[in-house]
Amino acid sequence: MSLLVQKFGGTSVGSAERIQHVAKRIKQELQRGNQLVVVVSAMGKSTDQLIGLAKELNAAPEPREMDMLLATGEQVTISLLSMALHALGIKATSMTGWQAGIQTEAVHAKARIKAIDTKAMLEKLEDGQVVIVAGFQGASEDGQITTLGRGGSDTTAVALAAALKAERCDIFTDVTGVYTADPRVVPLARQLTQISYDEMLELAHLGAGVLHPRAVECAKNNNVCLSVRSSFEDVEGTIVKEEPAMEDGLVVHGVAHDKQVTKVTVRGMKKRIGALSGLFSLLAKAHINVDIIINQSMYDLDYTNISFSIHQDELRNTLTVLENNKENLVYKDIIYEEDLCKVSIVGAGMISNPGVAAEMFDCLSTENIEIKMVSTSEIKVSCVIPQVDMLRAVQALHTTFGLDKAKAKAYQE
Amino acid sequence: MSLLVQKFGGTSVGSAERIQHVAKRIKQELQRGNQLVVVVSAMGKSTDQLIGLAKELNAAPEPREMDMLLATGEQVTISLLSMALHALGIKATSMTGWQAGIQTEAVHAKARIKAIDTKAMLEKLEDGQVVIVAGFQGASEDGQITTLGRGGSDTTAVALAAALKAERCDIFTDVTGVYTADPRVVPLARQLTQISYDEMLELAHLGAGVLHPRAVECAKNNNVCLSVRSSFEDVEGTIVKEEPAMEDGLVVHGVAHDKQVTKVTVRGMKKRIGALSGLFSLLAKAHINVDIIINQSMYDLDYTNISFSIHQDELRNTLTVLENNKENLVYKDIIYEEDLCKVSIVGAGMISNPGVAAEMFDCLSTENIEIKMVSTSEIKVSCVIPQVDMLRAVQALHTTFGLDKAKAKAYQE
Repeated sequence: MSLLVQKFGGTSVGSAERIQHVAKRIKQELQRGNQLVVVVSAMGKSTDQLIGLAKELNAAPEPREMDMLLATGEQVTISLLSMALHALGIKATSMTGWQAGIQTEAVHAKARIKAIDTKAMLEKLEDGQVVIVAGFQGASEDGQITTLGRGGSDTTAVALAAALKAERCDIFTDVTGVYTADPRVVPLARQLTQISYDEMLELAHLGAGVLHPRAVECAKNNNVCLSVRSSFEDVEGTIVKEEPAMEDGLVVHGVAHDKQVTKVTVRGMKKRIGALSGLFSLLAKAHINVDIIINQSMYDLDYTNISFSIHQDELRNTLTVLENNKENLVYKDIIYEEDLCKVSIVGAGMISNPGVAAEMFDCLSTENIEIKMVSTSEIKVSCVIPQVDMLRAVQALHTTFGLDKAKAKAYQE
Repeated sequence: MSLLVQKFGGTSVGSAERIQHVAKRIKQELQRGNQLVVVVSAMGKSTDQLIGLAKELNAAPEPREMDMLLATGEQVTISLLSMALHALGIKATSMTGWQAGIQTEAVHAKARIKAIDTKAMLEKLEDGQVVIVAGFQGASEDGQITTLGRGGSDTTAVALAAALKAERCDIFTDVTGVYTADPRVVPLARQLTQISYDEMLELAHLGAGVLHPRAVECAKNNNVCLSVRSSFEDVEGTIVKEEPAMEDGLVVHGVAHDKQVTKVTVRGMKKRIGALSGLFSLLAKAHINVDIIINQSMYDLDYTNISFSIHQDELRNTLTVLENNKENLVYKDIIYEEDLCKVSIVGAGMISNPGVAAEMFDCLSTENIEIKMVSTSEIKVSCVIPQVDMLRAVQALHTTFGLDKAKAKAYQE
């Protein structure tokens, strides 16, 4: 008997009918003799509807109240899924985040999970019940309802799998697995059978929407075996675990894109020890995720320009933080560039192939695309480019690095 | 500075626009220098929508899961109302039932409030905040989400007013106050300016939907001054408190009706000590509210027939309980009569006017209406009659006891 954690996203539980379908899949899994903890998201577009209602009443609602509001979405799903299971004669108990013992930081809208008290869940599992947990939410130590931010249900599932030492964590979603690129953008994209945590982490961070990056991080840190698969089609998904089989010998495994990027430059910042840490500590305290950072010293010995990229939604908040701290930070002015995007190539094979970055720049320059920022890691290269060029860039890179499905077919013919 | 508790029902918070309207009323109240705790229901028909979803998945959902589901309705409203207040520059904090310290019995769907820990609310009030509490819900000692049953938001408001020693509890609703009869049934019904707890209690128990009977009971027990008023029109409502001004000298103050009544008769029950208490303890344990009880011994010395009335929704449950305990209870069979209703007259003046019941029976017999059961208290007389005769009965009684508005007008002419 294995304990599995299975997570069903918003589309998978988008209607009464789909919830019934999920209940049937759970029943099948139980018949295989497994114990189950199921994590669910809010139904379909219900979160967006709640956000719409909130915006009618307040253009900038307080995060605490947004969490109070949005946490109801998953609470609806857990109770409905329990009822659907009961109708099939299956014992099940729903639990909100706080009831399942998910304790988070005292931060709203994007809290991180601090600890999970598995006592209540284990009691129900021992009683032969399916435990249905509301994803995306928890409670701070002082009893405030918190949420983990969009996509946080993945993180809930992986964190529960880690805390419960589950055999595997299945992420059921509306795609069949992880692809070499977004199939909506690159029709020739192929599905991967297996991928490493680091590659998945880079892909997730780079905007491949299949898995929340924190979920992958959490899976890597706790060595949780992840399986990404479709809740609609009964086909094999993509397994995410350490040391995947090198199926293809390809240097690059995937091309990712993230279309909502803004570049911010703090100009004329006085050079001094602690200047950089001061700047980025302030942004971190305001919970602004900074992605690429470039420190351009230029010719001046006393002043420096610092550029960084953020999600475009964070621009207002970022500017406020910077302006409120102008005296401490000591800089001349701030400029920013909107309507940018980021394209990235990811692959564990890069470590032993130093020419990959150059090949990427070459591909983009052949397409006459301007590169605004560059960032590299051992297994990925990212370029910030204009948003209008994104589609062309992703498709050209997918072809350049030999990922197109058509080519594979061509070989077979 | 007075502390008031104000409750806004589902219709009053049925849309973003109406929530804004409620926020403005709260602002006015604050400008009068009062402290406020506001209790809200779920938005408009949202509870019914949730119930509809549940029924799609399970014909008889477990009460625990229904509570989990329905409690989201009020949680949505508290967060939205807080956001609307923030938009007006008013400090406010939303609290779910459990966050507000409302502890209930460990019973689902119709839990009673056991205790209220006011600490969290008082902290926010001292900080100059409006506290917005989710009505209708609480939590049991072991952290299960419970609900108080339909109309329970009134009870929440009164219980909070009692626990916080509030000056007054305002119940804002979609009617302007308490009437001598349901104005939709009796067009000539008049609004009362004041009424006693006992009269209100009888009216509430008898199905006059303005206030939940438990709310009135709780107000009476704790001597909470209630005010029932419209959230749409800015007019005086009806005050409910002890010893109302005898404005009219009328014997009867109101005619109430309750249209969903079923009469159940347990026939051939063996006479023995404890037989009756055994029967009704079983029903009470199953949380079935029994209204009128009639013990008809007839001619037989050894066996008795016991009739009682229940809400028609309880019939299935009642029959199950009786059948499962046939051996212990020792009876011949059960018969029941559906499609009945109850009409009642209520008035403190009855105590000194013993002929009132006779006058009621006379009125109904003149209308050729069959009386199936009778129940009397010091300040009310109720008759169970066929549902088809309800409208005629209520109107005839309203006229007979001099409550018609037209008459009052006629005197003025």
